[in-house]
Amino acid sequence: MDYYSHQINRLVEELMSLPGIGSKSAQRLAFHILNMPKENAKKLSNAIIEARNNVQYCQECFTLTDNERCPICKNEKRDHRTIMVVENSRDLAAYEKTGKYEGVYHVLHGAISPMLGIGPGDIRLKELLQRLQKDADEVIIATNSSLEGETTAMYISKLIKPTGIKVTRIASGVPVGGDLEYIDEVTLLRALEGRREL
Amino acid sequence: MDYYSHQINRLVEELMSLPGIGSKSAQRLAFHILNMPKENAKKLSNAIIEARNNVQYCQECFTLTDNERCPICKNEKRDHRTIMVVENSRDLAAYEKTGKYEGVYHVLHGAISPMLGIGPGDIRLKELLQRLQKDADEVIIATNSSLEGETTAMYISKLIKPTGIKVTRIASGVPVGGDLEYIDEVTLLRALEGRREL
Repeated sequence: MDYYSHQINRLVEELMSLPGIGSKSAQRLAFHILNMPKENAKKLSNAIIEARNNVQYCQECFTLTDNERCPICKNEKRDHRTIMVVENSRDLAAYEKTGKYEGVYHVLHGAISPMLGIGPGDIRLKELLQRLQKDADEVIIATNSSLEGETTAMYISKLIKPTGIKVTRIASGVPVGGDLEYIDEVTLLRALEGRREL
Repeated sequence: MDYYSHQINRLVEELMSLPGIGSKSAQRLAFHILNMPKENAKKLSNAIIEARNNVQYCQECFTLTDNERCPICKNEKRDHRTIMVVENSRDLAAYEKTGKYEGVYHVLHGAISPMLGIGPGDIRLKELLQRLQKDADEVIIATNSSLEGETTAMYISKLIKPTGIKVTRIASGVPVGGDLEYIDEVTLLRALEGRREL
């Protein structure tokens, strides 16, 4: 890319290393950054380096946070005896946005995937079992409804059941507003299996 | 967004200020950055701040570059008597990628748009006319084929014609590989008007 100068090329290449950013988007972002007030570019640059340098795992639930314990684990009003197991911090955020879940979380940072060579030892499962040695009433497994998520859910439930702690799985079915006509067969069968009496 | 910690929120907000990056993409990018090796995050952060701080306009063609003159204007092998006028540096890059254009460029940094209140004085037109006082054989107007681009093309051609310098406009028509069935009427008419004898 001789038509841009060295530093523009470098910026474009760095931006292209981000997920979902191709060559065109990277160029668009780069020129947007070059046309920003210097102050704003500095803020963006600092946000990246500071977030990366200061963020750590919460010692309790292993979400990413900038303290030893995340705001949710620190909150005494939450029900610390109900633990929702999620694959990553974005899934945690998705449930937090509902505003209705009162319990705490456990972030696995992945899901078991023999295809990708990710085994039970590669996700934060050991840490979950350690947490459960303190008292817990219920573990809600909210891994994704994918092959990996389901495998992980099965594996966790088998591990926890012998301890006598209640293990549940979030429901799988037709999303709200979903049109049956456009929904895949597996989801339709799940919705049927999971039917409830009215 | 209480469920993320302060520095993660800040990073997400900064990323959301970029064009085409919504809330979900910003979260995805933020967590990607948080999981990067620290060294890579530092490289990204530095690329942003250094590009922004060092980039300037080329004194000749006004593209963004990190020297007084851009690599194209410095290149003695290019035809400095043929000047292609483009709206921005990305358009310049698009033509450079063809690898066939031997002339130089002039970057307007915008197009005339009465709707957005952008007049001839807000783009680099005065600088183009100054360049043309030195000798030039041809000015190729390669502004976009939008309302603003066409208006700008018309305006520039009227300004330059009295000087006797040849003014041309890139062709408008059916894109290569385009299926007539899916092409809008205006483009089809342009293609018809611009037909050439075989």
